[in-house]
Amino acid sequence: MRKAAIIGVGQTKFDRRPDASIREIAFEAFKETVEDADITSKEIQASIICSATHYDKQRTPAGVIAEYLGLNPQPTFNVEAVCASSGVGLRIAWSFITSGLHDVVAIVGFQKMTELSSAEVQEVMGRSGDVMWESPFGTTMPAYFALYAKSHMQKFGTTEEQLAKVAVKNHFYATKNPKAMFQKEITSNDVLGSRMIASPLKRYDCCANSDGAACIILASEEVARKITDTPVWVAGLGLASSPMTLTSRDTSYNSFGCTVEAAKQAYKMSGIGPNDIDVAEVHDCFTITEIINYEDLGFCERGQGGKLAEEGQTYLGGKIPVNIDGGLLAKGHPVGATGASQIRTLVKQLRGEAGDTQVKGAKIGLAHNLGGIGMYCAVTVLRT
Amino acid sequence: MRKAAIIGVGQTKFDRRPDASIREIAFEAFKETVEDADITSKEIQASIICSATHYDKQRTPAGVIAEYLGLNPQPTFNVEAVCASSGVGLRIAWSFITSGLHDVVAIVGFQKMTELSSAEVQEVMGRSGDVMWESPFGTTMPAYFALYAKSHMQKFGTTEEQLAKVAVKNHFYATKNPKAMFQKEITSNDVLGSRMIASPLKRYDCCANSDGAACIILASEEVARKITDTPVWVAGLGLASSPMTLTSRDTSYNSFGCTVEAAKQAYKMSGIGPNDIDVAEVHDCFTITEIINYEDLGFCERGQGGKLAEEGQTYLGGKIPVNIDGGLLAKGHPVGATGASQIRTLVKQLRGEAGDTQVKGAKIGLAHNLGGIGMYCAVTVLRT
Repeated sequence: MRKAAIIGVGQTKFDRRPDASIREIAFEAFKETVEDADITSKEIQASIICSATHYDKQRTPAGVIAEYLGLNPQPTFNVEAVCASSGVGLRIAWSFITSGLHDVVAIVGFQKMTELSSAEVQEVMGRSGDVMWESPFGTTMPAYFALYAKSHMQKFGTTEEQLAKVAVKNHFYATKNPKAMFQKEITSNDVLGSRMIASPLKRYDCCANSDGAACIILASEEVARKITDTPVWVAGLGLASSPMTLTSRDTSYNSFGCTVEAAKQAYKMSGIGPNDIDVAEVHDCFTITEIINYEDLGFCERGQGGKLAEEGQTYLGGKIPVNIDGGLLAKGHPVGATGASQIRTLVKQLRGEAGDTQVKGAKIGLAHNLGGIGMYCAVTVLRT
Repeated sequence: MRKAAIIGVGQTKFDRRPDASIREIAFEAFKETVEDADITSKEIQASIICSATHYDKQRTPAGVIAEYLGLNPQPTFNVEAVCASSGVGLRIAWSFITSGLHDVVAIVGFQKMTELSSAEVQEVMGRSGDVMWESPFGTTMPAYFALYAKSHMQKFGTTEEQLAKVAVKNHFYATKNPKAMFQKEITSNDVLGSRMIASPLKRYDCCANSDGAACIILASEEVARKITDTPVWVAGLGLASSPMTLTSRDTSYNSFGCTVEAAKQAYKMSGIGPNDIDVAEVHDCFTITEIINYEDLGFCERGQGGKLAEEGQTYLGGKIPVNIDGGLLAKGHPVGATGASQIRTLVKQLRGEAGDTQVKGAKIGLAHNLGGIGMYCAVTVLRT
C-alpha cells in the first residue's frame, strides 16, 4: 500500500465573519496552507471541498471555491457528512493518493453559519435529523445530545459538574490559541449558572455557530519526502455510520456506535492503540459528547468519562491531553471546517510547533470527527 | 495498480414519483442492483450517496438512506457535483477499492425534483451558478446553455433543425427503454414547434425534471472474478473542472473545457481513443450539449457536431451510437441519478443484455457526466 503524508495545514480564525464570503474565507485558509507546504497551487492535482449544506445561498460551492483558489481545470467536487465533512474529505484524498490517481490533493473545509438567525440555524440543523419521523416534532441539536447526557447521568452517575469541567478546560486552552473564537477563561460556576438550553445542557455546554475555514494538503510519500523534512503520516483511517433515527440505534444512548466502529478500524489499520496516543482532538459539539468520546475511543473505561474530566486527566500533563486547542466548544465549530482544523492542530503538535500547548515529544495524534446527530464518524491516526 | 469492476447495476423508472420518498426510490434502485450482482447487502463495505442539494427537505441524505438500505455501520457520506454527482461517486469508489481500503462499494445516485414547483426548481438551479455575480441577475439553466447554442450556431452554422435531430433520436430510443420517462416518438416539427424556453432552445431541446434513482456496485478484481463471469472493468477515469462564472471561462462558449480535459485523462488512462468506443452515453441536458459533447469527446471534428446529428451517425448502426437509452432528454434527468444510470446502460450493453438497442459485439463504452453549468465533468471508459 502506498503511503500518504500531510505536508501543509492552515486555517482562518474561527469567528463571526460578516466581512467575507465563503470563497474568501476558503482562500484565507488555503493561502496559509500552500505557504505552510511551500508549494504553489499549480502542484495541487485535485481539491475536495467539504461543507454542510443550506447555511449559504451558494449551492455546489466547489464550483466557485475551486475557481477562486485557482484550481481549475483540476478535479473538484463537494463532500458532505455534516460536521464530519472534512474528516471524510481526508479519507477520500488518502484514497486518491494511495490508489495512484494523484500525488498532491487539497482538502478545504469551510462554513459560514452566522448570517442565518439562530432560529434559522436550529431549523437547518434539525433537518440533519430524519425529516420524516423526527425533525417535524421539534428535535434540535441540543435536544438530541441532551438525551445522551440524561442517559449517561442516569446510568453512570455523571454529573453536571463533570460536564462543566470539559467546558472550563476547553475555554482555558482557547485563550492560548489565537485562532479560537472565545478568548476568555470561564469557571465551573459560569457554566452551571449559564442559561438552560436543553436540560441538562446549558449555554456553555454547547458549541457556538461560527464562520471559518481550514485546509490540509496531502501528498504521496515520494512527493512528501522531496518537499518537507517534517511529513506527518496518515497511519490509520476509520469511517463508520449509525442509523439516523434514534429509535433504530442502540437505545441505551450512552455511546456513539459509529465512533466505536471507526476507532476500531483506525486502531487496527495503524497498529496503534488508545494508550499510545500522545494528543487527541475529539468532537466536543457538547460537553457530554467529549465525555462519551473518551469512553468510545478507549481513553478510559465505559462510564468513567466524567471522572476523567473531573480529575483533569485530559489537560496537558494528564493521562491524555484532549482538545488543547479549545475544541469545538471554545475554538468554534464552523461545521465543514472542523475536521480539517482538528488535523491542523495535531500536525502542529507532531511537528513540535504548538507553542505554549506543546505536548513534549508528541509522536502520535488522533482526530475524532462526528457528523450530525452521530450518524457519521471519521477517526484518523497521525504519526511522525 | 489494482483493478476494479462493476458487478451490479440497477435503477428505478425515471418519472414523477409523488408516491415515494427519497429513501424509498433509493431502495428500489439498490434492491435491483444487489439482485443483479447476486450478493447481499452485508457484503457491501461502504456506500457513497450522490445527489444535488436543496430539492428535498432532508439534509445530509446519506444518513437516512444508508439506514434504510441496511448499510450501517459501514462508512457512508454524500458526494455532490450537481448533475455529475454519481459520476464523481464512481471515481471515489474506484479509489477506495484500488487503494486497498475496500473490496465492495455501492454508489447510489438519486433525486426527487418534482415536489418543488417549476419556479422553485429554476431558482434552486440558478443557485448552482455563482450567487454573487450571476444568479441574482436571473440566470437559469436553459439561459446558460442557450448562450452556448447561440455561440455554436454563429461560429459553425449549427441549425435549430440539427438540434431538433438530437431530441428526435433520444425520444425514439426512450420508447425502447421501459425505464425512460417519455415513451412517445416525436418529430423534428414537434421540436421546432414547441414552446420557446430560452432562444434558441425550445421545450423539446430541454430535459425534464424528474424523480429517480440508480445504483452501481463496484468490486475489486479478486471479488469480481469470484462473483461474476461478466465483470465490466473500469478502464479509464477522467475528472476535471471549469470556472463557475462564465466570464472566467474561454468566452467563445463553443466547448466545455472540463469535458475536453476529463476525456483526455480517461483516454490516456485507458489507452482507448474516441474511435475505439462502441457505445457512448453523453450528458444531453440540452440538445446543444449533446452536439458540443460529440466534438469535445472527439467523436467528430470541432464544429461538425450538428452535421453528425443531422446525418444520423449517432443512431444504432451509425458511426457511434450515443444515448440509445433515451439520454437525459427523454429518459429523464433526476440529477444525482444520471451518472449512475449512464453507467447502467453501458454495463447492460457490454454484457450483451440491451435487447432491441444492443450494439452488436460492444466491448468498450464511454460515459460523460457534466455537472451544473459545465463546471464539473466526469468521463468514464468501461470495457469487457
